Amino acid sequence: MLDNIRLSSDETEVIILDQTKLPGKVEYLRLKTAAEMREAIMTLQVRGAPAIGIFAAYALYVLAKSIPEQADFNRTLKEIKNSLNSTRPTAVNLSYALERMIIAAKKAGRKREKILKALSGECRQIQHEDIAVCRSISEYALTLLKDNWGILTYCNAGPIATSRYGTALGGIFLGFERGYKFNVYCCETRPLMQGARLTAFELSEEGINTTLICDNMASRVMSEGKVQACFVGCDRVAANGDTANKIGTSMIAVLAKHYKIPFYVFCPTSTLDMNCKSGKEIIIETREEAEIHTGYFRERLAPDNDSLKIYNPSFDVTPANLIIAIVTENGICKPPFEESLKMIIRKKASK
Amino acid sequence: MLDNIRLSSDETEVIILDQTKLPGKVEYLRLKTAAEMREAIMTLQVRGAPAIGIFAAYALYVLAKSIPEQADFNRTLKEIKNSLNSTRPTAVNLSYALERMIIAAKKAGRKREKILKALSGECRQIQHEDIAVCRSISEYALTLLKDNWGILTYCNAGPIATSRYGTALGGIFLGFERGYKFNVYCCETRPLMQGARLTAFELSEEGINTTLICDNMASRVMSEGKVQACFVGCDRVAANGDTANKIGTSMIAVLAKHYKIPFYVFCPTSTLDMNCKSGKEIIIETREEAEIHTGYFRERLAPDNDSLKIYNPSFDVTPANLIIAIVTENGICKPPFEESLKMIIRKKASK
Repeated sequence: MLDNIRLSSDETEVIILDQTKLPGKVEYLRLKTAAEMREAIMTLQVRGAPAIGIFAAYALYVLAKSIPEQADFNRTLKEIKNSLNSTRPTAVNLSYALERMIIAAKKAGRKREKILKALSGECRQIQHEDIAVCRSISEYALTLLKDNWGILTYCNAGPIATSRYGTALGGIFLGFERGYKFNVYCCETRPLMQGARLTAFELSEEGINTTLICDNMASRVMSEGKVQACFVGCDRVAANGDTANKIGTSMIAVLAKHYKIPFYVFCPTSTLDMNCKSGKEIIIETREEAEIHTGYFRERLAPDNDSLKIYNPSFDVTPANLIIAIVTENGICKPPFEESLKMIIRKKASK
Repeated sequence: MLDNIRLSSDETEVIILDQTKLPGKVEYLRLKTAAEMREAIMTLQVRGAPAIGIFAAYALYVLAKSIPEQADFNRTLKEIKNSLNSTRPTAVNLSYALERMIIAAKKAGRKREKILKALSGECRQIQHEDIAVCRSISEYALTLLKDNWGILTYCNAGPIATSRYGTALGGIFLGFERGYKFNVYCCETRPLMQGARLTAFELSEEGINTTLICDNMASRVMSEGKVQACFVGCDRVAANGDTANKIGTSMIAVLAKHYKIPFYVFCPTSTLDMNCKSGKEIIIETREEAEIHTGYFRERLAPDNDSLKIYNPSFDVTPANLIIAIVTENGICKPPFEESLKMIIRKKASK
């Protein structure tokens, strides 16, 4: 597994894997200035909600170290935090991680050295917690798998989007470390190709047997008996278990049900939104037409006239009744999800 | 509808729509020499099994006219026929159309003028018959549609692949001519993008409301209630109704069943293969990996290492139990297909 985010040995730089260069090039960036840190988030050099949070925490620490002695330390720290936070205002993990860093700084008192020590500890802690969450999800995931199984996965919910292991891919990586042999079918995930560019990369570079397919080939692969389980991540889970994830996920779930293959969703409990009653309340973002008609293509591959519309919803909602289980760091939730999700949330709160 | 194949007014050229330039450019080619005719088939400037057959017949006629007076007419004609026939040896319509032309020539006797007249009649006849077949399929198709319906289609089975109207798209074009308003959802059809490049082009240029989506968006579009029927073409239908068509068709069929949307297959009776008992006997061609990892992309979009395979099956088989009806020029076949397909074949034979 590639280290996606870490400090340089002298702790004056954050070193990240440049995700925009994958899968063609494995390139690390050494980021030192606030401008570089902001750009890394905005241009998706670092992406995946947990990864962004971890990165921002490290960035704040490194930038705090370079605050001049004569400056008002706390005010400058706050300015840096706000600047980082504004790069992707909708990513919850980003503001959550930065907020934790500021609270840690406040608790450390007024001395610069003590504050820096607290920040140094807190950013590492945020990463360690995410590793622990992913690790726990992966352990639960592995109890669902058997040696030599074929697993179909969709979009990207792997190590580079998180800390280590990932969510949907965690069980596969952990099993591989323990000697399991899997055959992973990886859907390319149109139009942004996260499956082809990122998931296929992460799995195959690790040495895991991976087969890339177009999204429309999932039915054939399932009909051939090549798939024993479907593993996907998610962006939001409603209180009734309805799950929003990358567009096409519900297609995989319908196919899985038809071919009698279990369909599992993986996420940290922070993704469970108990204030959202059902999938009907989840608003689905539509994105630019150009992503579909041109995007990664050499030239536009669709006609350009008034009668043609292009529809580009970014997510879809998989209804709870197509999901066998939702796997979190606190355990595996089975239907009825109204009850099992509530119990998992309580378990988290009482920890 | 664009005229895809016709003779020049002096009948010394075949004029075709260059399908390789779509959807960016509507360009017609005027083909005069045997080399140009062969190249047109080989480079897919003309594609679609019925369209290739029609084109080859016209090509043979035009080339026959230019056989020098001093040459052995019949021998030269045979040579031209064999040369055209070798361009795509697996396309049944190609050899069928050329064979019909040779038989017509033989029946016309020994006089050059009479032979040319027979050839001139036969190539037109082949095109007219295909128009009649497509027209009849379209009439049956239209009985299945209602005004303002949303129709989801897949890959390309429209006018440019046939003569006029097409098979799966025929009912839509015919209905549009008669004042019906449809909303057609057109799946892009990875990896070769026939839906985006050809179907979206044919429909929207005619003025029909068309929405292009990625294949993985079909589930969402259906779940939103936007689709009242699914219309697809096919490459081969087995005696039990199992249907081979472009990869991804079975995905559409499974989704349609889940969302309780009728799924229809359209084809001429020549596509019914009663010697093939079921879909299990249909061998599915796999194509080059490069079509998926690079193809129309600016650069390779998948990693390149020993652990990664790329699977590129070109077709899949939709089991008969997911098909509401198979629509031919002789009528609409409903389950049990073992019986209804036999009856349609008999109807054809007795015509």
